[in-house]
Amino acid sequence: MESIVTPRCAIHFNYKAYESLEEQINRANYSKVFILVDENTNKHCLPQFSAQLDKVFDFEVIEIEAGEAFKNIDTCTQVWDALSELDADRRSLLINLGGGVITDLGGFVASTFKRGIDFINVPTTLLAMVDASIGGKTGVDLGNLKNQIGVINEPIMVLVITPFLRTLEERQWLSGFAEMLKHGLIESEPHWAMLRQIMPFDNVNDLIYDSIQIKNGVVSQDPTEKNLRKILNFGHTLGHAIESLFLEKDKYHPLLHGEAVVAGMILESFLSHKLLGLGTNQLEDIKNTLLKRYTRIDFSEDDIEDILELLKFDKKNTHGNINFVLIQRIGEAVIDNRVPKELFAQAFAYYKE
Amino acid sequence: MESIVTPRCAIHFNYKAYESLEEQINRANYSKVFILVDENTNKHCLPQFSAQLDKVFDFEVIEIEAGEAFKNIDTCTQVWDALSELDADRRSLLINLGGGVITDLGGFVASTFKRGIDFINVPTTLLAMVDASIGGKTGVDLGNLKNQIGVINEPIMVLVITPFLRTLEERQWLSGFAEMLKHGLIESEPHWAMLRQIMPFDNVNDLIYDSIQIKNGVVSQDPTEKNLRKILNFGHTLGHAIESLFLEKDKYHPLLHGEAVVAGMILESFLSHKLLGLGTNQLEDIKNTLLKRYTRIDFSEDDIEDILELLKFDKKNTHGNINFVLIQRIGEAVIDNRVPKELFAQAFAYYKE
Repeated sequence: MESIVTPRCAIHFNYKAYESLEEQINRANYSKVFILVDENTNKHCLPQFSAQLDKVFDFEVIEIEAGEAFKNIDTCTQVWDALSELDADRRSLLINLGGGVITDLGGFVASTFKRGIDFINVPTTLLAMVDASIGGKTGVDLGNLKNQIGVINEPIMVLVITPFLRTLEERQWLSGFAEMLKHGLIESEPHWAMLRQIMPFDNVNDLIYDSIQIKNGVVSQDPTEKNLRKILNFGHTLGHAIESLFLEKDKYHPLLHGEAVVAGMILESFLSHKLLGLGTNQLEDIKNTLLKRYTRIDFSEDDIEDILELLKFDKKNTHGNINFVLIQRIGEAVIDNRVPKELFAQAFAYYKE
Repeated sequence: MESIVTPRCAIHFNYKAYESLEEQINRANYSKVFILVDENTNKHCLPQFSAQLDKVFDFEVIEIEAGEAFKNIDTCTQVWDALSELDADRRSLLINLGGGVITDLGGFVASTFKRGIDFINVPTTLLAMVDASIGGKTGVDLGNLKNQIGVINEPIMVLVITPFLRTLEERQWLSGFAEMLKHGLIESEPHWAMLRQIMPFDNVNDLIYDSIQIKNGVVSQDPTEKNLRKILNFGHTLGHAIESLFLEKDKYHPLLHGEAVVAGMILESFLSHKLLGLGTNQLEDIKNTLLKRYTRIDFSEDDIEDILELLKFDKKNTHGNINFVLIQRIGEAVIDNRVPKELFAQAFAYYKE
């Protein structure tokens, strides 16, 4: 698969990824190379990754605990301390080997350590490959509020190595697949049409490539999310609130990001139907396609109230208004929609029925 | 005094500062305005500042504890939490009203809150006016290591309101004055010649303006400190290590930044004499001018060892080498000098004699 190159970041695939990493390390003359992992990627991905690189350069490994519950400033402090103790300097490189927590947190740590060092993302989950590692959004949670603290700063390189997906559990696979479905819904009806036939663990390499191209295309046109980039938040306004709520309810067994976003996409498709005339057939297609693969979440009335309360912390809000991305048809998103409050109850009712 | 305008940041003085702030707030339609203060600036500066602005816009005040000991990630978390609780969003503005701790920390908090909101620096100390608030370096300390965590991101505006200096104590005044002296030493012999005649609390408004122009000129040519900007670190390689050591020894009564930098400038002038041929007359002039105003620090042998140990955390280091900025004569700095270890003991001996 051909590399995707933007002014600041290059995305390389599979064997080309290893080649490009070697070239970069030889060219840049880094003082030290660090690899950030969690317990899981240390065990399941680092051996495979380092087997390709061991002879090429030395590196130090920094391990953090796995899971969204540890995507916070305390973990950043652990990594900053580790870098200090291991004599990292401004000319050091941090390689983030893991899922979205590792690439988001590691990107933030690198962007702020001594006011910024180079970093490279090596996503090991489907979610991180098609979404988290692309586009330069870095950050951590503040309490239960997702990604409240961060910067926009692109990695110098993203290495997409699809054999890592073999180690993924089905839930994790599906969590990433949700973002690919979203790329279809907001930007490409043909992409959606292909994806709706796919079931877990089908070979999706070509579709991963297409999804990355869609995301990267959007981000390149609007890196700081002034306008177009907002479309990537489809399903995420309610999705993030749902994710925050379930993180609060059970910190160590939360919903996965994609699972929350799937519920968000169904709810926001209903809002799209009401406000932008998304056709009934497409609305039903979206709901059926998603609920065929993802377990319906059992929201209580209290949950729904809490979710609506959490909406006010959404980063896209301004001046007290909640802004939604909606779709007028599959493949065509519209930003900055204001949603009357009374529609939320109807949307949840539709989700449940 | 005429405003100094760069592509991203404008520096306004005195009455023009208040005017420009009003214009900016009217133009930008911020959702909310926050003012970050510490106990001291809340008491001594905010009343004067807000008296000029009360009728123009509403704001919320966030207060943190005063002092370098609180320039850390825990304090950032307090401010991020406060912003969240007070419903700050991406279109909010943070005004940092205080000394270097407030402008450095507030700049970092703003640059990372929801991946970046606008901020304005209103320096209230001489140090912050001529140095900390200018040039976009933001950050906090990591343990005892100064400014290890941060980003480079310019405020949209710096407001230099010199009447704030009336509330300053002599030690604070001198701490800022040290950076002005540095601007002379690295970039302008005439600036040095003027400053060496000044004593605490003389009117220095015009010289403040000149110092800001020197700093801003350097920073504009090299915002990310690849080359030229490094000259601003003269006196700071040893100065930061000295400051870190005394912070470690007594967290609540540390040396002031400028006091540590003065020692650093004398030591590094000695190194300049040995390595770049800085003339004996100029070396003596620097030492005498500085020690006439600043108390000589009583370094023990253990202190000196600890300082040399701390040098390895300096942000300018790469590949294990310690890089010094030295001067070949007053007004002419040279970056990237490597210093043989045996010279340090001689430098401290010269400082003491």
